[in-house]
Amino acid sequence: MKKKQDPPCMPAEILPPVVSLVGKPDSGKTTLLEKLIPELKHQGYKVGTIKHHVHEFEMDKPGKDTWRHKQAGANTVVLSSPTGIGLVRDTKKDSTIEELVARYFHDVDIIITEGYKRAPMPKIEVFRSTAHKTPLEDRDETWVALISDVEMPNEKNIPIFKIDNIPDIASFLIEQFITLAPKQNITLLVNGKSIPLNSFVKNFIKHTVTGMTTSLKGCEKPKKIIITIRND
Amino acid sequence: MKKKQDPPCMPAEILPPVVSLVGKPDSGKTTLLEKLIPELKHQGYKVGTIKHHVHEFEMDKPGKDTWRHKQAGANTVVLSSPTGIGLVRDTKKDSTIEELVARYFHDVDIIITEGYKRAPMPKIEVFRSTAHKTPLEDRDETWVALISDVEMPNEKNIPIFKIDNIPDIASFLIEQFITLAPKQNITLLVNGKSIPLNSFVKNFIKHTVTGMTTSLKGCEKPKKIIITIRND
Repeated sequence: MKKKQDPPCMPAEILPPVVSLVGKPDSGKTTLLEKLIPELKHQGYKVGTIKHHVHEFEMDKPGKDTWRHKQAGANTVVLSSPTGIGLVRDTKKDSTIEELVARYFHDVDIIITEGYKRAPMPKIEVFRSTAHKTPLEDRDETWVALISDVEMPNEKNIPIFKIDNIPDIASFLIEQFITLAPKQNITLLVNGKSIPLNSFVKNFIKHTVTGMTTSLKGCEKPKKIIITIRND
Repeated sequence: MKKKQDPPCMPAEILPPVVSLVGKPDSGKTTLLEKLIPELKHQGYKVGTIKHHVHEFEMDKPGKDTWRHKQAGANTVVLSSPTGIGLVRDTKKDSTIEELVARYFHDVDIIITEGYKRAPMPKIEVFRSTAHKTPLEDRDETWVALISDVEMPNEKNIPIFKIDNIPDIASFLIEQFITLAPKQNITLLVNGKSIPLNSFVKNFIKHTVTGMTTSLKGCEKPKKIIITIRND
């Protein structure tokens, strides 16, 4: 690791922090994730992942009841158990990372995505010289680190890690993303879009809604409040 | 169909309506659902399903990237595409139907669950004489219909349908659940529990929060608002 730097540009309204692993196909992103996730968990952090898929997909086991529900045309199918939840649902368009985070990732410490090269999230590029001759060519200011099996061009002098140096990569993620992430305790989603809130507005909404809720029967100690409103 | 009846007892705060298919194992619940779902969709309704599973489960295809993320220990894994979303996440305890509905089913017209015999939702019992000698024995007031391949005890005189009479079963669901369901446009979830709201409180919260939101930049026409607050 060559150099520490300021936390990368990250939409402040997003909770928790998101970082994207990018790189050409077969550069080892999933293999890296398979090693990084246990290391982060070992250090006590909850990890979420998002994989982008450009085509239709199937995410269930053929023959299972839930698979049969989906095949029959159900728009949303949930499998619920005491240890986990599985969900498959139709959508009309690609979801943004913000939408996915706001909807599904309230309780993790960090989210690592595979792909999403064009989203405005901080990115770590993975390069493996045995798979490709050259790394990605269109790096921009959202690139925050490089991971590679060889020396590689690093014109912006961002941190660079050996592909097998999992402890240092994990430390980088923890220091730059988890530890420095602003602790958000309120999120506002309007028409599917996450709305940035300054601290005055944040406190105003938080206290107004909490106060309003506390006065309701059975809501004396509202630790977590979710309100959903539809204005037709 | 023998008799129409008032809409069954249903927690009014739940949106959309939920009905549970119950019956002994192998009585044909999934097979019935496979026929009911296309019929409901054909009539223009969006359908959600929930399956309860008492053990650990796997809901992905071994070898896929998302499967590898989960195997590596990720707490929440999402696969996102332009046509659909898949999610697998860890939970610490069994989720209630209310939690699942509030979190995952905002955009369907009806939710049909398999199982959940002990939840307070309206129930339709499926019985198949070739699989079992007798139907369930502990019917209570949440039973709203029976579906069977033979005549069966019907001490409460609730509607009874032939197991292959899909059009009438679908009509019953539409009339009793979808059409009569109160149109809810606000839900409040506190500490994971859905809070019943009378119309005064509903309007008060809806107008307060909508007004507060409208004054924010980019939120002039808030069709759908979701606020999440954590009070630590």
